[in-house]
Amino acid sequence: MNLRSIPRDSDRAAVLAVVKATGFFSGEEEAIAVELVDEALARGPASGYEFLFADAPDQPEKILGYTCYGPIPGTQSSFDLYWIAVTPTGQGKGLGRRLLLATEEAARRRGATHIYADTSGQDKYVPTRAFYTRMGYQAEAVLRDYFAPGDDKILFSKAF
Amino acid sequence: MNLRSIPRDSDRAAVLAVVKATGFFSGEEEAIAVELVDEALARGPASGYEFLFADAPDQPEKILGYTCYGPIPGTQSSFDLYWIAVTPTGQGKGLGRRLLLATEEAARRRGATHIYADTSGQDKYVPTRAFYTRMGYQAEAVLRDYFAPGDDKILFSKAF
Repeated sequence: MNLRSIPRDSDRAAVLAVVKATGFFSGEEEAIAVELVDEALARGPASGYEFLFADAPDQPEKILGYTCYGPIPGTQSSFDLYWIAVTPTGQGKGLGRRLLLATEEAARRRGATHIYADTSGQDKYVPTRAFYTRMGYQAEAVLRDYFAPGDDKILFSKAF
Repeated sequence: MNLRSIPRDSDRAAVLAVVKATGFFSGEEEAIAVELVDEALARGPASGYEFLFADAPDQPEKILGYTCYGPIPGTQSSFDLYWIAVTPTGQGKGLGRRLLLATEEAARRRGATHIYADTSGQDKYVPTRAFYTRMGYQAEAVLRDYFAPGDDKILFSKAF
């Protein structure tokens, strides 16, 4: 399966479906995920949002997972991993790993020296945090109650 | 001197003048500062960017300093201090302190429980970091080489 970097109109619904299917995100977060696709569709690379999509085989207009990343404004070579999401049916097959490695490669080709990924301290994110650690990311900071009372932000980074 | 919260068209140039006068910011950062004013002028509170301006006495359309802040999308009650800048002539008179306290008050009235401020680890930011510490902020993280090689990001926060 190839990863696709050019977003298309059907990705609005496809991204929303993936993000909903994970069961991890609030309505506000779902809206933000779609907004980033809209920005990329409307403004192209000038939006600052790049994507990699794992298209679902034999299901046009559906995806099994995706990443959204881009250069952080005001930095020379730091990139942000804004989103990574894989549908439950796509999980456990190395797709998250493949998406993240391809994202790191694409960012490095564009000059990235660092990539940052924020996640949550909630129990349901234990697998997410373990995933970043396996992928070579360091927890740089724990921001207490950042997302909400009892919901910390964990800031991961990887230097190339 | 009262602080003003409603942005007006002349603030595009006024903000650019303040940011330039500090000598702290790159051309890219200056452009971002003006972009946030544009967003607030175009979209109002929906932009997510709030301002407090210290108008220059007897100089209509000029300001001595300002802050830009707002709720962080995806969080329940965390706010970001996007910008604080005071002209050299306005510095050393407690204006930065007054702007920051008024910003914290305004954010708290809107339900903020935390406010975050990013700054740089460069030597020229020693006074900035000392200012945040005096104002009760904690350094939560040091992100090495975040802005550029040799230019770390220092992440400050204050909980209410």
